[in-house]
Amino acid sequence: MAFSSEQEQIAKFWQDEVAQHYFEVLRTLISKKSIFAQQIGLQDVAGYLGEIFANVGAEVTIDETYTAPFVIAKFKSSKPQAKTIIFYNHYDTVPADNDQIWTDNPFKLTLRKGYMYGRGVDDDKGHITARLTAVRKYIREVGDLPVNVTFIMEGAEESASTDLDKYLKKYADSLLPADVLIWEQGVKNSQGQLEITGGNKGIITFNLAVSSAEVDIHSKYGAVVESATWYLLNAISSMRADDGQILIDGIYDQVLEPNERELDLVERYALENSEGLRKVYGLKLPTLKKERRDFLKTYFLNPPCP
Amino acid sequence: MAFSSEQEQIAKFWQDEVAQHYFEVLRTLISKKSIFAQQIGLQDVAGYLGEIFANVGAEVTIDETYTAPFVIAKFKSSKPQAKTIIFYNHYDTVPADNDQIWTDNPFKLTLRKGYMYGRGVDDDKGHITARLTAVRKYIREVGDLPVNVTFIMEGAEESASTDLDKYLKKYADSLLPADVLIWEQGVKNSQGQLEITGGNKGIITFNLAVSSAEVDIHSKYGAVVESATWYLLNAISSMRADDGQILIDGIYDQVLEPNERELDLVERYALENSEGLRKVYGLKLPTLKKERRDFLKTYFLNPPCP
Repeated sequence: MAFSSEQEQIAKFWQDEVAQHYFEVLRTLISKKSIFAQQIGLQDVAGYLGEIFANVGAEVTIDETYTAPFVIAKFKSSKPQAKTIIFYNHYDTVPADNDQIWTDNPFKLTLRKGYMYGRGVDDDKGHITARLTAVRKYIREVGDLPVNVTFIMEGAEESASTDLDKYLKKYADSLLPADVLIWEQGVKNSQGQLEITGGNKGIITFNLAVSSAEVDIHSKYGAVVESATWYLLNAISSMRADDGQILIDGIYDQVLEPNERELDLVERYALENSEGLRKVYGLKLPTLKKERRDFLKTYFLNPPCP
Repeated sequence: MAFSSEQEQIAKFWQDEVAQHYFEVLRTLISKKSIFAQQIGLQDVAGYLGEIFANVGAEVTIDETYTAPFVIAKFKSSKPQAKTIIFYNHYDTVPADNDQIWTDNPFKLTLRKGYMYGRGVDDDKGHITARLTAVRKYIREVGDLPVNVTFIMEGAEESASTDLDKYLKKYADSLLPADVLIWEQGVKNSQGQLEITGGNKGIITFNLAVSSAEVDIHSKYGAVVESATWYLLNAISSMRADDGQILIDGIYDQVLEPNERELDLVERYALENSEGLRKVYGLKLPTLKKERRDFLKTYFLNPPCP
């Protein structure tokens, strides 16, 4: 199947009743702040998502057991042997604080030169409405779905998916077996190609605390009393070498080393490189890996300590 | 001169009209928050101090050039050859946040078992009113002062006396020559003795900043892009050895080493020791110096990096 040109796609978008409807839904979603890091609007947006999915006939579950509600919306195919696809999305966004330079209100969907702008258009509210548009159009035109489609939408992705593991465990029986899970976005690389990513690095967060005394101590004792601050600072500093290696005993024993074929494939298809990053982001400190193969292995396959 | 007993002193305090007046002034001072760290009430309290000193006949200057106003109040003796005494005090206090356990409102002067409680009673508003009480009583009874008395009161002592150096430079001519400057409080040690301290450690504060890129970078690049956070963390960590020594080249060249006589005197009169601190503050980390002479030298005479 050949894709129509960008102009044709945009023209179709403006004439498409369903697409226009969900464009307005996206406008509403962008205007509703839902920021886990600031504990803003999570219940509100989860409830709104429940409504728009229920309106298309999904069986909706909103679970508010943990901090950010978990939203599950299930569309069933009438075929008994239908396979199941899960879309993973999230409705939280990172904050839009004043330490960034905004040319426009980030919580107002705007159009400029054929592109949509707004906090969450790309990450990740736009993908929710785009996928829902496709499901809605398919049901409307065909009357049924060829596969079962389950949407799971969490509200803490930008904060290390706090509690997602608990929700997944709770709903494991109803989410499995699924045949494929598609994660978040569908992005094109800098050459306009669609890419399939086979996996992602995870994230570990933890709290460190040092307790040094039972009550506050005046700083005049600083020369003779060991301070929690320094213990903590040195503990953190001791976790990472200057070249970015993590200095926690045994941590690399748990990392599967890529084989030569995998490294060759990465080297062949990857577009990223050290010098490119330096230019795009205006890096002022040296990058950690200069040599391309080393750079790519570290970037794609090694655990970082950023 | 023998001091009267504590009971006699308290009885005199309650019968003394001038002391009672300034007790009420202190109540007002405690109720007026003046917290440099939170930028609260500095102008208000500086103005109030100006009033109460002017009411006793002082020549008052309030300089609002920098963040916290500097208050100078001068009482002149009629004797042409009178010596000059300066009292240094400050009207700012540390915050009284909710992370502390308060048995009472910290900004309300209360009396319990013969002691006054309130944020600033001891550090340092009470000393302002106590000294002003003495000056007022002396003038009232004798009609003149035997010495010139200058009060200087700043509003940022709890925040490393920000800007004090600039005020002192500005008023150097009018504050010098003075014969003695008495600093802040008059405290008794744990054996009930009044102590004279010959000097104080100063404080240096500075900001460190690392700029690593021109725009925000996604954490996915963390394995290959050097981060400002780690540079900064390692820079701070590199400034201090585990035994508390400051690792900045040449810094100890500027520290005058105490001689044996001075160390002997400290050892003879000091009450502090490592084990005592451990008990009083419930220290959970080891103290930096165990041996008493080493502990005392470090505590009293070495620059700390707390």
